Formats: sequence, C-alpha cells, structure tokens
Amino acid sequence: MSSGMKDFAPVVYILSILLILLSIFMALPVVFLSFDATPNAHAFISSALGVLLAGLIGILLTRGEQHYLKPRYMFMLTVGSWILMSVLGALPFYLSNLGISFTDAVFESISGITTTGSTVFTGLDAMAEDILLWRSILQWVGGIGIIGMFVAVLPFLGIGGMRLFTTESSEWTDKALPRMKTLGRGLLLVYCGFTLLCALTYWLSGMDLFEAVNHAFTTISTGGYSTSDQSMGHFKSNVILLESSFFMALGAMPFFLFVRELNGQHGVLWRDQQVRAFLAFLLVTALALTLYRLFNHETEPFTLFSSALFNVTSIVTTTGYASEDYLRWGPFALAAFFFLTFVGGCSGSTAGGMKIFRFQLSLMVLREQFKRLLHPRAVLTRNFNGRAVSDEIIASMIAYAFVFLVCLLIMTLSLSLLGIDFVTSISGALTALSNVGPGIGDQIGPSGNFQNLPDTAKWILGIGMLLGRLEMLSVIVLLSPGFWRG
Amino acid sequence: MSSGMKDFAPVVYILSILLILLSIFMALPVVFLSFDATPNAHAFISSALGVLLAGLIGILLTRGEQHYLKPRYMFMLTVGSWILMSVLGALPFYLSNLGISFTDAVFESISGITTTGSTVFTGLDAMAEDILLWRSILQWVGGIGIIGMFVAVLPFLGIGGMRLFTTESSEWTDKALPRMKTLGRGLLLVYCGFTLLCALTYWLSGMDLFEAVNHAFTTISTGGYSTSDQSMGHFKSNVILLESSFFMALGAMPFFLFVRELNGQHGVLWRDQQVRAFLAFLLVTALALTLYRLFNHETEPFTLFSSALFNVTSIVTTTGYASEDYLRWGPFALAAFFFLTFVGGCSGSTAGGMKIFRFQLSLMVLREQFKRLLHPRAVLTRNFNGRAVSDEIIASMIAYAFVFLVCLLIMTLSLSLLGIDFVTSISGALTALSNVGPGIGDQIGPSGNFQNLPDTAKWILGIGMLLGRLEMLSVIVLLSPGFWRG
Repeated sequence: MSSGMKDFAPVVYILSILLILLSIFMALPVVFLSFDATPNAHAFISSALGVLLAGLIGILLTRGEQHYLKPRYMFMLTVGSWILMSVLGALPFYLSNLGISFTDAVFESISGITTTGSTVFTGLDAMAEDILLWRSILQWVGGIGIIGMFVAVLPFLGIGGMRLFTTESSEWTDKALPRMKTLGRGLLLVYCGFTLLCALTYWLSGMDLFEAVNHAFTTISTGGYSTSDQSMGHFKSNVILLESSFFMALGAMPFFLFVRELNGQHGVLWRDQQVRAFLAFLLVTALALTLYRLFNHETEPFTLFSSALFNVTSIVTTTGYASEDYLRWGPFALAAFFFLTFVGGCSGSTAGGMKIFRFQLSLMVLREQFKRLLHPRAVLTRNFNGRAVSDEIIASMIAYAFVFLVCLLIMTLSLSLLGIDFVTSISGALTALSNVGPGIGDQIGPSGNFQNLPDTAKWILGIGMLLGRLEMLSVIVLLSPGFWRG
Repeated sequence: MSSGMKDFAPVVYILSILLILLSIFMALPVVFLSFDATPNAHAFISSALGVLLAGLIGILLTRGEQHYLKPRYMFMLTVGSWILMSVLGALPFYLSNLGISFTDAVFESISGITTTGSTVFTGLDAMAEDILLWRSILQWVGGIGIIGMFVAVLPFLGIGGMRLFTTESSEWTDKALPRMKTLGRGLLLVYCGFTLLCALTYWLSGMDLFEAVNHAFTTISTGGYSTSDQSMGHFKSNVILLESSFFMALGAMPFFLFVRELNGQHGVLWRDQQVRAFLAFLLVTALALTLYRLFNHETEPFTLFSSALFNVTSIVTTTGYASEDYLRWGPFALAAFFFLTFVGGCSGSTAGGMKIFRFQLSLMVLREQFKRLLHPRAVLTRNFNGRAVSDEIIASMIAYAFVFLVCLLIMTLSLSLLGIDFVTSISGALTALSNVGPGIGDQIGPSGNFQNLPDTAKWILGIGMLLGRLEMLSVIVLLSPGFWRG
C-alpha cells in the first residue's frame, strides 16, 4: 500500500470488519430457518461468502498499518459504511428467486438498513421466510448501527446540535476508549434485551414465533417492515397495537439513558426533558385524533384510541407500521400525519426525523426572543437538561434544519419533474428524509407502496433515506470542495 | 382621561391621525370618478364621515397629553393600527350595493390592506368602478404603510433579524427625528414616483386610464388586486407582462436604497447583497420554468419566458397576479409555485413572505458550519452587506422562522378541521401568511378564488394575513402574559 494511501488504511480496516459482521448476519436466515423456508438459500450463502471474502481481503491489506483515524476520514467512514451496507445488503434480494430489478433490491435494502421501512415488495404474506427475515435483520442491524453512530461519531462531528449530547465517552482519546467500550456493551445489551422482550410479548399476544421475531426486530429498530401487506393491521388486535406502541416508543428514546438507568442512575430517563416532551406529544396527538374521530360520529373509543396511538406513535417514532388507512379518517388526519412525518423521536435512539430536541431548542430560542422584545437589556441564559446551550449549538441546529428543508425542496422538485403529483412528491421526499416509511396519498400512503414509482424516483428516495439517516450534513460536507483540499 | 389611561394617549393620538388619513382616502373614489362610476357614493361618503368623526374625537380626547410612546405601546400601536384599518376599510364594501356579508367585506379589506390580494369577489370586469378603485387604494395604502413600518418600527422592535437593517434614523430620539422625517419624505416621493411611472407605462401599452391607475396601485404595492377576473391575463400582452414584472420587482426591493440612490449614493442598490440575490433568483427560476415547458413540447420561447417571468415574479414578490393558470404547466410547476410562495421579496419593500435575506443568513450559517466541521478551531465571522451579523440576529431569525412554520401548521390544521382538502389548506395558509394571494389547487389557485370557502376559513386566513404582514412576532408578543405584567 502506497504511503499516500496510508491515511485510508483505518477506513478500509473498519469497513472490512463491518463486512465480516454483515456476512455473519447474511448467514442467519439460512442457519435459523428450516429447509422449506429458505428457497433462496443459494442467494444468502453466496452473498455471505462474497462479503466475507471482501472483508478478509480488506483486513489483510491493512494488516500492520496504523489505526489512527484523522477526523476528516471519520466522515468518509461514516458515509461509506452506510452506502456499502445498503448496496451489499441488496445482494440476497437481487440473487433470490424474486426476480426483481437491481433498483428494487437496492431500494429495499437502503430502506431496511436506514430503518425507513418504505417497501417495493408486495405479496408479503406469501413471501419466502428467508427474504422476510432478511428485511427484518437489515432493520435491526441498522437500528443498532445508528445508536452506535450517535454515541461514537455524531457528537464528535458536531452536526446539527448533536454536540449537546457529548458525554465523557464522546472523546476519541485513549483515556475515553474503555468508557466507550463499556457504554457500547451496555447499549447492545439493552437493544437485545428490548428485542427479546418485544418478541416475547408479541408471541404471547397471538403472533406466531416467526411473526413475533420479525416484528420485534422492526419495532425496536423503529424500522417498520412487516410480514404482511396489511402491516400490523393483519393481527386485528388492539392489545398488539398498544404493545407495539410501547416498544416503538422505547426504540425512539435515548438508549444511553437506559444504560444509565441500568447502572443505577434511577430516574434519569423520566427526568430527561426530551423524553417527557416526546411522551406528552404522543399522548396529546393521539387524544386529539381520537376526539376528531368521535366528533365525526365514529364509535368505540377504546378501539379509536388504540388505533390513533399506534399510528401516531408509528409515524412520530419513524417506524412506519400502519394498522389501517389513517388517511381516510378525514382531511384533518391527513394534514396531521403529514406534519407528524417531520417530528421524529428522541436523539440517541433508532428514530429518524428532525427529532424532538430540535423543536425544544427552537421553542427555547423563541421564548428568549419574547423576553428580549420586552426587556431589551435582560441577560438571558439557555439550558437543556441542565446543560448550557451555546450559540454554536443553536447555529448548528439551524444549519441542520435549513439543509433538511433544502433537501426536501430539491427532492420534491426532482420527483415532480418525473411527473409525480405534488402530494406524493412532497410526502415521499419527506418520509424518506425522516426515515418514516409511508407517505401521503393513494400511491405511497399506508395502503399503497413504492413499487410503481419510476426507477429514478426510487434512487432519489434511496439517497434521501441515506441523507436523513446520516443527519444530512455528514454527507454534504463530503461534497464541499474544502473537504478535499486538505 | 384618567391618569392610568395616560400611557395610552399617544397610541390613541396616532391612531386618530391614521383615521383622518383613511377618511381622506375613502373620499377619493367619489372625488375622482364620474357620477356614473360611483353607484356606491353613499357608502364611501358615510364611511369617510364616520371615520373622520372618530378620528377627530380621538384627537380632541388626547389634546394636551404627552406624546412620548413607551416601547411596549409601540407593539399595541402597530398591531392596533393594522387591525383598525382592516375593519374600517371594509365599511365601503359592506355598505355598498354589492350585498356581501360582513365576513366577505372584512376579508377583502384585510387582503387589501395587507397587500395579499386574495379575493372573494367575482365578476370584477362588470363591477362598479368605485369599488374596484377602493380595492386598489387599500393595497396602495397598505404598501406605503409597510414601508413606513419597516423604517420606523420594525428594526426598533428587533423582530426576526430586522435589527440587521437598523440605520441612524432607526432610533426614536429627538436627534434622529429630523433624519427620519427626511427619509420618510424620500420614501413617499419614490413610492408615488414609481406608481406614476407604472401607471403611465401601462397606459401607453394599451390599458385604459382606469385600468392603468388601478394596476399601478396594486403593482407597486405588490398587492395583486386586478380589475378583471382574469387578472393580468385579461390584456393578452407579453409587453405588459414584462413591464409588470419590472415594476413588481421594484416594489419588492428595499425602498430606502432607492432614496439613497436619489441622494447621490449611486450603486448602493446594485451592490446590495439582498437585491442581487433576489434578481438572480427571479431570472434563474423563470428560465427553469421556461425550459421545463419547452421540454414539454410547448413552443414560442418568448411568450413562455414572458409568462414564466411574470408569474414567478408575481408570486416571489408576493403580488399575486396571474396571466394564466400556471398550475396546469405540470407537476413540477405546481411544486415550484408552492415553494415560491415561501420566498418573499426583499426586506424594506412592500413584499411579504420569509424574505430573501433570511435565506441568505441561513446559507451563511450553513457555510460556517461546514467550515467548523472541517476546522473545529477556526475563528469565523459573519457579515451581510458589510455589516457584522451577531448571534442575536441569527437567534431572532430562527425565532421568526419557527413561528412562521408553527403558524403554518396551526392554520393548516384549522382549515383542514373545516373539511378543506390538504393542498388547499396548506397552500391557503401559506399564501395568507406570505401575503401572496393565490394558493394551489382548483379552488384557491390562480384560476379560482376564495369566495366559496366557509366563513370560519375566511377569518382564519384573514388573521393569517395580518400575522404575516406584522412579521408574526409583533402580534404574538401581545399574547404573552409577560407583556401585560409590567
């Protein structure tokens, strides 16, 4: 390896390790499912072997190189790893008996690994179990991936107000490394624990084991892939809807707080401003939609509330399940669900979207403005969860929001250039950027899917999902000339 | 007058002067139009006399009181004067032979005085001239009103990043008063001069004198009321469309820069960052839409460009004329016009909307973020038009943008609660907040109007127009408990 390439060595090394992990996950459907359930075994085995080989070669090539990672290579690693996983995750779909195009395979894989949950597949109820399980595994892997990225990478990069969540373990120093390893183990434990608990709950409530495991994978990761075209509506059970709401909400809360709770810091979760606002918001919105439907002369308040809470939680946590076509509840519900697609869960969770804390910070700035308008000379301080909020954090939040809206604009215009109607274009762009799943309208709404969109639209949306998952700026910084200058 | 009321005296005094001015404007249709053209003379004369009487009483009541205005009463004065003008401006409509409801009369008046230009009237081509002229006068008055408010009130209140535009004359001190009077005279001169020039141009290009005057009033004020249901499309002239684009653009540029040019500071207009971005944006967008239509196999590039430039300028300057139903150009045009409704003109003009400089500041913050991501320790400074941009200005801009989006959210949800479809709700809310005029969709789009909306919707939109015109925060601060506490 030439000396100019040396700086890339740690990037290649870490990507290679990720490839080996991916190949292990690719083998899981074949390992765990019966022979009957794996008609695509050939696709999984060859994909896994190929990826494993690539990973091993990468490790061999970078053997003995220094493993110090320059900050700017961190951006390349972050963006590169998600793109690589997306493309390679598509291999089993592409090589399977489904006979789908490369575009569709990659779309489904990106939508999986970014935990978006938009799908181009139909006939899920009759689909081979190995394919279904692979979709769920992609989301589960993507979920833990984003939690890890939040703890290890994002605060360090200082993107979109994320510096607010730096901890002692957010420094990449030798001293911080053991702390970060402990935190990582804790996060993995919580993630696996929640998944197990969720699967068990679903199973005890009437799902079969396969359904329970798949939905647990896609619930905790706030992914939203299902084993049925009717999504969670398939089970016709209010109890399952409420359980699912609970676990989606867990998946959309800051995981490092769960770890702290486990480590004896009782009450940190409940005292967290973001968590409280998030839960309050879910309840108030679900109640409002329940009341709206009651006023529209619908009956059975408990069913209405279960459905409202479930579908609201599904969109706000960016999971993207549906229990019914909520767009038919009326114009108010349609407008509400459009705006809910912006919200997102808490930072440090598996959820995407703008995220609750950014709205809280905006509100904080607004309150401050009111005070300043009335008392121009007042000295004001901001804090969030007991932490000072610097002007720099506010500025990085605006940069994030601005880029989010510009991406929304560009994607909407690009989709409409393909002849797609306005509501489908704007809600499709939004649902991709927020990693939610369904959009608004008959085509890509909760009762439709993304299959019939033009191929170009699928690529635009796929790029949008990756942008959203990577908080936009980490991708865009790679496109700036300054990045490559030195 | 009791001593506790004394603080209000200057508020009442200034409002009374405004009433007397309003009564003079109310008399104009009767003074200038022939007997045949004023079937509603009774309505105008009684409205003018009533308003005059109220103004005189107000002045008598506050005679001899101190005229010092406490800062917080400035908010009350600002908001109060716009509400008062809106309601009283509706009197001639309400008392006329049109037989319209109070709601419709107030809607038309608010839409006029805020220079929005959404209308509930149809059959304009056959309507009495006195009514048509009154609609145009309302917009012309509203236009100079907002320019005056920008110079005298807004920077002082420090709302939405407007502090960026404080000048020596923005201080309310005895020393600054003569300078402010000179500036005021200059602004009025420019405003009247442009109106005259515009009327003359229209007249020479084929409009009759009445049409030319009315359209000049509503062009320079970026209002958008027309004397024909077909708006500017009535004249079927590319030349008029281009002239109108030019004068709308003038109306949407910072008027204080015109005054400086007149005072010998040549080139200030062209060197202004906001003006350059504004003009470039208009041209690029118009070209893009022209190309889009050419690719869609439409012909006659000059006609296509004239129409694109005219309709884009109309929406971006928040005028709201239309020359044809641009929503039929295709999905891309529809999406584009939706987003154009956000943009707005330059600050210090008659235009509404978010305004160009806020996008420029956001972009500046974004660039800064990129630099910071790559060089965490770099020392960065921001400036706009050679002026330092403080963190406080950035914070007040976020507060503005956040409130804008929250108002958009609340209004959209409220409209959709009335059963109005999503696209009409969101674009109606947006067009009101931005003071543009037409929305998106068949009902309130460029080929429709606001007549058939429910009364409640008209009130919601009317409030939205006032909120937009007053940069939102100046209204909302009145609703905060802190304002009334002390």
